[in-house]
Amino acid sequence: MTLADLATPALVVEAAALESNLATMAAALPGPRLRPHVKAHKCTRLATRQAALGHRGFTCATVREMEGLARAGLGADLLLANEILDAKRLFGLARLDARVTLAVDSSETIAAAARAGLREVLIDVEVGLPRCGCPPDRAGALADEARRSGLVVRGVMGYEGHVVGVEDRDRRATETRRSMELLLAAHAVTGGEIISAGGTGTFDQNTWATEIQAGSYALMDTAYERLGLPFVCALSILATVVSRRADWAVADCGLKALGMDHGNPRIDDHAVWFCSDEHTTFGGPEGAPPTVGVGDRIRLWPAHVDPTVAYHEELHVIDGERVLESWPIDLRGW
Amino acid sequence: MTLADLATPALVVEAAALESNLATMAAALPGPRLRPHVKAHKCTRLATRQAALGHRGFTCATVREMEGLARAGLGADLLLANEILDAKRLFGLARLDARVTLAVDSSETIAAAARAGLREVLIDVEVGLPRCGCPPDRAGALADEARRSGLVVRGVMGYEGHVVGVEDRDRRATETRRSMELLLAAHAVTGGEIISAGGTGTFDQNTWATEIQAGSYALMDTAYERLGLPFVCALSILATVVSRRADWAVADCGLKALGMDHGNPRIDDHAVWFCSDEHTTFGGPEGAPPTVGVGDRIRLWPAHVDPTVAYHEELHVIDGERVLESWPIDLRGW
Repeated sequence: MTLADLATPALVVEAAALESNLATMAAALPGPRLRPHVKAHKCTRLATRQAALGHRGFTCATVREMEGLARAGLGADLLLANEILDAKRLFGLARLDARVTLAVDSSETIAAAARAGLREVLIDVEVGLPRCGCPPDRAGALADEARRSGLVVRGVMGYEGHVVGVEDRDRRATETRRSMELLLAAHAVTGGEIISAGGTGTFDQNTWATEIQAGSYALMDTAYERLGLPFVCALSILATVVSRRADWAVADCGLKALGMDHGNPRIDDHAVWFCSDEHTTFGGPEGAPPTVGVGDRIRLWPAHVDPTVAYHEELHVIDGERVLESWPIDLRGW
Repeated sequence: MTLADLATPALVVEAAALESNLATMAAALPGPRLRPHVKAHKCTRLATRQAALGHRGFTCATVREMEGLARAGLGADLLLANEILDAKRLFGLARLDARVTLAVDSSETIAAAARAGLREVLIDVEVGLPRCGCPPDRAGALADEARRSGLVVRGVMGYEGHVVGVEDRDRRATETRRSMELLLAAHAVTGGEIISAGGTGTFDQNTWATEIQAGSYALMDTAYERLGLPFVCALSILATVVSRRADWAVADCGLKALGMDHGNPRIDDHAVWFCSDEHTTFGGPEGAPPTVGVGDRIRLWPAHVDPTVAYHEELHVIDGERVLESWPIDLRGW
């Protein structure tokens, strides 16, 4: 099969770029030093590659991701780095054929986990990003509460999500340190062997965490590309030019094939004008006309990998014009 | 089944609001005066409701939407309002158990349609939105070319997509007239009985088109709500508050459950701070704390219906706390 056989829009990953990203990360953070976050790719076949390189524990954002990894035989050590209150779904998690650890940040989430028969938790600590996580000075009390409820507290997690995208490397380092000081202070009280934190943007700067939760590094996107990390953009969307005018061209890839919260995708040697539901309109650079015609195939490089992948059913692994394999994006939904 | 039984995030539609929107539109544009665009809801069950109200022709943006409507017995008169060059997919379209009309805007798209054995086309004319569509003064030549290729030219289409969201009603009217003057000039040369145009924002102002392609009116979103149309926001996402701090709360609905190109969703009586992959962080109004606690269920009103619906597998039709039906979003993908 070749690229020409793919119906567009099609999500494609360059095999060599993917393998380079996976190998670079495995060298920097070998084995359990990385707990790959599957929310970025939602693909058990890709997770299998990460496990083969030595990362046998995974981070998940949804129950479906946990269930899918367990079913795929990748359940050695699964962390659901998210708060869940749904009794039915927690009950299902507790019965997975997998080692399941759950993030908790409140009395309510602890009680729900204990009631469902879950065994292991991390205390989720807010380290500067206003999202989930308890205040650092509440972590000790929550750990005690969890233990009183019969849960094993494996340690803490705290995601410096407000830092991972900071472009200036020195500022990123300073802010990571500040966040991790909060997390270490919490950990000193909670105990447990795990300090889980970090992301692609801080993978080599967060030296305090015992494990890094990076996910985007495998496929990458144009937002992370700006940080000058040793990972290359491996993911793009193959599209067909379906219409052409003097000043612009139109590709059959739009808002339903692209996460748009980080802005427009990039098209090499062209300037993107705007995206609509099923199309991207683009011109050439600096007001020049585009250099493609009707029927040509182009690539769009997404600005944010996670919500882009979540729209697609398959990830085609390619080498030049050849399609090597097509992997289902089997961990979609919740 | 009640709302409490739904796992979150869940896409829900108020039955009464949906029926009100459908009835209001059917009264304004009865029967064939409306060719509902299914790209906004991607749901054959909802399309069946539209057909029951008299709209037996549909507009589609993707081949999957065409195939799905045909399979559901809704293929009386399907318009693919998009340019397609993929020979295999065009061949499939030509063999659907449906009346299929295809938009064409170039020699290439005409040739591809004719080669695949398709029979009927509309000449797609650009009327101000830089996207698909030929220049108005090319429409006649393309119609001749299509007829020479053995295709029946049913008329023209031209979408005033740059106008449908203009908030000032008078300006919207003026700009719609300007766009439709271009389309009528093209139609005067191409002939054919159809002048297809319009959207939810211009449904009652575009009096030149023989049929209006509105889609969003059925479910609506907060962007269209600002226009003061006689349609109400019927679609929301049910979410659970999974974390709470003094100043903010976090709901389990994020970028993978929301189209973000029109901005953040709305939460009644609260202020949305930001959305991340699986969460929305929000406070109360004007700096006040939120009035919800961990475990509470809330609703998020999306800013753009189309890319929001495309993330979900099911649309739950509700009446207060009761879930009346769950409709598959069965026209997703391409």
